[in-house]
Amino acid sequence: MIFSTGIHIQTKGNTEVIDITSQVADRVRESGAKDGTVTVFVPGSTAGVSTIEYEGGLVADIHSVWERIAPREIPYRHDAAWGDGNGHSHIRSFLLGPSLVVPFVNRRLTLGTWQQIVLVDFDNRPRSRDIVVQIMGD
Amino acid sequence: MIFSTGIHIQTKGNTEVIDITSQVADRVRESGAKDGTVTVFVPGSTAGVSTIEYEGGLVADIHSVWERIAPREIPYRHDAAWGDGNGHSHIRSFLLGPSLVVPFVNRRLTLGTWQQIVLVDFDNRPRSRDIVVQIMGD
Amino acid sequence: MIFSTGIHIQTKGNTEVIDITSQVADRVRESGAKDGTVTVFVPGSTAGVSTIEYEGGLVADIHSVWERIAPREIPYRHDAAWGDGNGHSHIRSFLLGPSLVVPFVNRRLTLGTWQQIVLVDFDNRPRSRDIVVQIMGD
Repeated sequence: MIFSTGIHIQTKGNTEVIDITSQVADRVRESGAKDGTVTVFVPGSTAGVSTIEYEGGLVADIHSVWERIAPREIPYRHDAAWGDGNGHSHIRSFLLGPSLVVPFVNRRLTLGTWQQIVLVDFDNRPRSRDIVVQIMGD
Repeated sequence: MIFSTGIHIQTKGNTEVIDITSQVADRVRESGAKDGTVTVFVPGSTAGVSTIEYEGGLVADIHSVWERIAPREIPYRHDAAWGDGNGHSHIRSFLLGPSLVVPFVNRRLTLGTWQQIVLVDFDNRPRSRDIVVQIMGD
Repeated sequence: MIFSTGIHIQTKGNTEVIDITSQVADRVRESGAKDGTVTVFVPGSTAGVSTIEYEGGLVADIHSVWERIAPREIPYRHDAAWGDGNGHSHIRSFLLGPSLVVPFVNRRLTLGTWQQIVLVDFDNRPRSRDIVVQIMGD
């Protein structure tokens, strides 16, 4: 059984970290599947998906680590060519990746207690995002 | 066909790199499926999964690269708030990601000859881990 | 329905970034499936898969970010042990990851308009790659 649905969110961009766990769990419940996998995929090349313990300290630490890996203020060839100032956003998205696959068993995501599914919007402005959520199972 | 199972391991934490390829291959064989995908997912927010040529030199190099990206000894807001000293573990886990999907064909994982599936436990203490292994196929 | 196929490419190595979107889309069409997921997996431990807006500026920026994260010229224990000079290739591959899962709906990949699927070959020499493309759907 395949159930293709989505999550619509407004973001602030600028490496905003958004907990989407409850929406993903809702979609799994709505699918009616008992066991299977849910694929969370963000269309677009300036956002990414992963898991984290969602608390304010780590959200701040995520900002710091991205400033170390792909700083906002260094020159990017993308910005030199296109002038949109979001070269760092593209590079961060490429490194984190746009998709996450989480198994569920007995209608429950197999996440740890302190593990949340997060969308990170790296773009340099607010964005409207339609995240694809696809459930395969039986 | 969906077959949900797992791998139980004891780790030493501290960015220990553990080759779990043979256990994953065993689970695929036990499932009875001929073709499909295996999803390897680690519950918890201080570990991650990827592939590497599993040899001692690269295991040491993995330690070095994580010290460059998310050093153990710099201040983390997570540690300031919670005092458990594993801010770097959470950030490393977030960046590496908790899941890996590997296709298999004719009951064989499509890995390269020198490519192993590894769990990396970033926590700052020994942990007991129950890795989820879910096979979808026919 | 499971359809296991592949993409064969010659690469130049040295962190070459190759757009494989149209080949992946072709394989989805050939599978005949309407909805499902496609898993793109690269066997071998010196390459990786992700998505990016495929344009020359960002391809150059990808080279720069990897030189910051895992520089080519620093010492690697892998190179000290094996002498093949591609320690950085293995570490970059480990960090980016070998697999990507993309949902498709109505026979179309759910990519954004400016989002392409790319293979990155980190090895330090030209390589012949057989990328696994597996479609699950109905």
